[in-house]
Amino acid sequence: MMTPDLSSLDALPTPALLLDETRMMRNIARLAEHAERLGVSLRPHAKTAKSVEAIRRLTGGVPGPITVSTLAEAEVFHDAGHDDILYAVGIAPQKLGRVQSLRARGCDLVVILDSEAQAQAVAQADVPALIEIDSDGHRGGLRPDDPALIRIGRILHDSGCLRGVMTHAGESYSVRGPSSHAEFAEQERKAVVAAAESLRDAGLPCPVVSVGSTPTAHAARDLTGVTELRAGVYMFFDLVMAGIDVCTVDDIALSVLTTVIGHQPTKGWTMIDAGWMALSRDRGTAAQDVDQGYGLVCDENGRVLSDLIVSSANQEHGIVSLRPGADGPMPDLPVGTRLRILPNHACATAAQHERYNVLPQDDGAMQTWPRFGGW
Amino acid sequence: MMTPDLSSLDALPTPALLLDETRMMRNIARLAEHAERLGVSLRPHAKTAKSVEAIRRLTGGVPGPITVSTLAEAEVFHDAGHDDILYAVGIAPQKLGRVQSLRARGCDLVVILDSEAQAQAVAQADVPALIEIDSDGHRGGLRPDDPALIRIGRILHDSGCLRGVMTHAGESYSVRGPSSHAEFAEQERKAVVAAAESLRDAGLPCPVVSVGSTPTAHAARDLTGVTELRAGVYMFFDLVMAGIDVCTVDDIALSVLTTVIGHQPTKGWTMIDAGWMALSRDRGTAAQDVDQGYGLVCDENGRVLSDLIVSSANQEHGIVSLRPGADGPMPDLPVGTRLRILPNHACATAAQHERYNVLPQDDGAMQTWPRFGGW
Repeated sequence: MMTPDLSSLDALPTPALLLDETRMMRNIARLAEHAERLGVSLRPHAKTAKSVEAIRRLTGGVPGPITVSTLAEAEVFHDAGHDDILYAVGIAPQKLGRVQSLRARGCDLVVILDSEAQAQAVAQADVPALIEIDSDGHRGGLRPDDPALIRIGRILHDSGCLRGVMTHAGESYSVRGPSSHAEFAEQERKAVVAAAESLRDAGLPCPVVSVGSTPTAHAARDLTGVTELRAGVYMFFDLVMAGIDVCTVDDIALSVLTTVIGHQPTKGWTMIDAGWMALSRDRGTAAQDVDQGYGLVCDENGRVLSDLIVSSANQEHGIVSLRPGADGPMPDLPVGTRLRILPNHACATAAQHERYNVLPQDDGAMQTWPRFGGW
Repeated sequence: MMTPDLSSLDALPTPALLLDETRMMRNIARLAEHAERLGVSLRPHAKTAKSVEAIRRLTGGVPGPITVSTLAEAEVFHDAGHDDILYAVGIAPQKLGRVQSLRARGCDLVVILDSEAQAQAVAQADVPALIEIDSDGHRGGLRPDDPALIRIGRILHDSGCLRGVMTHAGESYSVRGPSSHAEFAEQERKAVVAAAESLRDAGLPCPVVSVGSTPTAHAARDLTGVTELRAGVYMFFDLVMAGIDVCTVDDIALSVLTTVIGHQPTKGWTMIDAGWMALSRDRGTAAQDVDQGYGLVCDENGRVLSDLIVSSANQEHGIVSLRPGADGPMPDLPVGTRLRILPNHACATAAQHERYNVLPQDDGAMQTWPRFGGW
């Protein structure tokens, strides 16, 4: 393997979002292979990347099935050729006009819901839907034995809008290690399969049985009865995922390039130009075994300086210091030194930036992939 | 006063950032009058609004002196006619090329620094600078009695780059009430005036003596020796500022319009389509007397529902519930109901959005003011 030429980094104004495509492609391949072994199709979530170029790599080089978190994502990705999209946030009736417009343009956009009121609005608008199932008490959805399930299924089926069921084990983020995540995966599977069987027992079709979260998707051992798997942050990974052993720190494909702008030597502080505007306010590792502050510090080439974290963040200032309990001394990082910060939560950090600066591979040049936001 | 027509709100897709211009203009006038009484000029901070239209109102309808937190802000606001700009984040030597370009285009852009290494780089680039003074141990800056002050002053003066001194009492955010903030204001004043006198005693000129933070700017009683006052978030205010009595909740000019998308009745949860992507991850009220979660809930017309907060936030989901200890019951908020969320931290919440939807005043129409981001 050739050593990539990183000299183009020198010209990049900081703070800037860096993407290591080699790591990203390795992360994408890992879950694709696991889904194939489990015999389910993969419907990756586009909310982390929000970039046409990045998502194309997530779906095998061609526009494939995806999950989205906003209608803006559905619109942008449909324009880029994706025509099989799940909008996986409970539908508000006011949004059905935009959904219908996209469907009229040839996009098979499917929504989710968990109430009779939503089902009636969706049936009236002739929009296909999955019923959201609550597998872990995390957020929305019906418990699989909720009698409303059949009532909702019937409202949808009567207008030809019933596509199936889905769940998301958001609570799996709060436990550590593959065997704990496998338990959540089995809980996801059991909940949606039970809901699908209830619907079928009532004479209602349930072709789609969809599960997923990044921890459970990687840990699932058996997905009998499930048809598709969703996950998003795995393409980049982050410190939260490393903290619960879904990946290692070396798998994290995203970082923020920053420059040292000052010091308070008596306090052991090194100031950088990446504050919460560049890193996000996400403190997802605060409740984990190892609190990484606002991010873990690496040198300019990406080598982890494992005792250094961003301990505090203002809008455009970060304070780098030794983590509590670490042996000193603080390394010498003169004004102008460049560092990279690994993010707690890739979705949140990426959202603070307008583009990915894609690190050169082998002897290639640095690329820029635009990101979008909004709703 | 006529009742404004809010029907245009109905067509606005959610989540969306709303700006109440009447409140904003009242907030702007309040500090302008206070600065005039104190006999100092005002150099408002543009980092909160990041909008040409909003900042024009902050500087009296014409492009006036401003403070910025990024060179992107300096570039955008100079293009909009502002030619007197302070970049109030410690300068990295790599950024001096962009600073010189702006200065060559006629912008009097001034930087800040607190080390000899930065002073040498700045002197070599012929860029004027203020020396940052640490008045409260919050972040960067030299203590006024640090012998490096005179050395830095001399490096700058020898190349004609010494403009003065500045400080920012970031710690004033951690105390409550005008008399506590007035103590921090006096601490800011004493620190910079002492630094200015040290420089003058050493034969070095110090024309600019700059102080400011939103709490201290409003509470300062005497600014003898100070030439200019900086503050930013006061134009919008937020729950953090209301929580330390710099403003009331009724002064908050910014909110996020959101739609109810689901319920978990047994848990008392109402799900909305404003998650941390729309509200930010800022939890600035968590350490205050009243923790407002991810924001305080109002009805669609802005009437505060004082027992309701956004208790939890995922990327595109917020969970609204009664605040701990509140008497129930949870109000009936059917799917499709619109609410407004007041932000913890206006700078962070505004940064998540691409535009302000400016509420109609009297019988006018709703306006849209674009925002920008990046560095």
